[in-house]
Amino acid sequence: MRRIKLTVAYDGTDYSGWQSQNNADTVEDRLDEALRSLLIDCHDPLLVESGEVGSIITGASRTDSGVHAEGNVAVFDTEARMAADRFAYALNTRLPEDIRILRSEEVPVDFHPRYSPSHKTYEYQILNTSIPIPTYTRYMHHIYEDIDINKMREAVDLFIGEHDFSAFCSAGAQVKSKVRTITALSIDEASIDPKPCRIIRIRVTGTGFLYNMVRIIAGTLIEVGLGRRSIDTVRQAIETGDRQLAGPTAPARGLTLKQIIYD
Amino acid sequence: MRRIKLTVAYDGTDYSGWQSQNNADTVEDRLDEALRSLLIDCHDPLLVESGEVGSIITGASRTDSGVHAEGNVAVFDTEARMAADRFAYALNTRLPEDIRILRSEEVPVDFHPRYSPSHKTYEYQILNTSIPIPTYTRYMHHIYEDIDINKMREAVDLFIGEHDFSAFCSAGAQVKSKVRTITALSIDEASIDPKPCRIIRIRVTGTGFLYNMVRIIAGTLIEVGLGRRSIDTVRQAIETGDRQLAGPTAPARGLTLKQIIYD
Repeated sequence: MRRIKLTVAYDGTDYSGWQSQNNADTVEDRLDEALRSLLIDCHDPLLVESGEVGSIITGASRTDSGVHAEGNVAVFDTEARMAADRFAYALNTRLPEDIRILRSEEVPVDFHPRYSPSHKTYEYQILNTSIPIPTYTRYMHHIYEDIDINKMREAVDLFIGEHDFSAFCSAGAQVKSKVRTITALSIDEASIDPKPCRIIRIRVTGTGFLYNMVRIIAGTLIEVGLGRRSIDTVRQAIETGDRQLAGPTAPARGLTLKQIIYD
Repeated sequence: MRRIKLTVAYDGTDYSGWQSQNNADTVEDRLDEALRSLLIDCHDPLLVESGEVGSIITGASRTDSGVHAEGNVAVFDTEARMAADRFAYALNTRLPEDIRILRSEEVPVDFHPRYSPSHKTYEYQILNTSIPIPTYTRYMHHIYEDIDINKMREAVDLFIGEHDFSAFCSAGAQVKSKVRTITALSIDEASIDPKPCRIIRIRVTGTGFLYNMVRIIAGTLIEVGLGRRSIDTVRQAIETGDRQLAGPTAPARGLTLKQIIYD
């Protein structure tokens, strides 16, 4: 038996997120369907044994509805005779155009996309223009008010390191500890035509994230940049864990899971 | 009577191009519909007089099906009492999200979006990666083979200036002269994650373009970059006007009309 790791990219606009659920079109379902059909064609004995119970893939990040990915990770086990790097091409012919496998490779059988230690990088993109430009807004959150990115940058250091991120987690998350580590957080801007249009990019890397954590950090930094929330309030949010002191959850369309690097 | 100039941006993916036509969803139709409804609400006496004959807007560039725009131009005449810059906001509330008016302003009544002298800038975007990344391919043409952009750049000078572009025009174009002037042509690249992925951008500015001219120039430059067409063949294409010597028409999705500057 071999374990194959897939690097998965998708435009999340038309999907109800990664995770399989009833009466919804999800990335996991599409990938599971494509993989089953491929493995059946390969006469994979393992698939026959496993029967029809649940998804045959295990994903790293269960991205929300509308969130995009350029480097999510999933694994599956197989006894099919196919070179590991060919699975990417074979799956792409069976997937819709808005989901692509960028890479497939063999990994040790004890590799687990969720539990093996990793650094995940997410990017949140903001289109800061008076009127939303349709060729950008599919992957960016539009804000028409002027954002002060220097103010946003002043808040960056508060997030870096190990903290209890209870204030940056949506209700309903069932986890024991809300302590997580952010290893890098940067804010960049790029000007685009027609001037003075610009894109602001928040890039955050960490060893793990809570439910909606990146979108709440983005929503908080946006409010700081708009002068609606002070650096001091953000500091208090981190110190007290009070969700009310952090900003709103920024819209899904601006978020892209860029990559997952395993340690 | 006032003439109002609109700067129009759209994601062309779901439209059958700019120009109104039977049984097709076009940008012009959507804009015409939004504008009529707005002017009726404003009790514009001019609209009542003009009746129902054809579109009440005149566009600058009749972009093809699937081509995008960030700066197409259209005008309409009105006697409605509304500040010129407010039309953009009022129209946007009546338009689908993939069409936006970026700006509205009053222009002299003899201003014509197509006949008034102008410089148009188009950009053709190529995603040069082994596998297409879904968050890019909506606005870019994917090519998996390695493109030599230095070779492409060697061909740039051949296009700049006044030339007979007969070889770079699709059949069926009914124009007297195929002489056009390209004032600028540049090729840039940007690397994106995951490395070594990159985007190649061909940006061309001219005083006028023939049917499919930018897409055929892009298709030709791509073949030069792939080593499939020599600089000498491109030179001959321009000199002889032989369509066979130029490259194929590159796909619509990679093309965006960036801006139109009136002289």
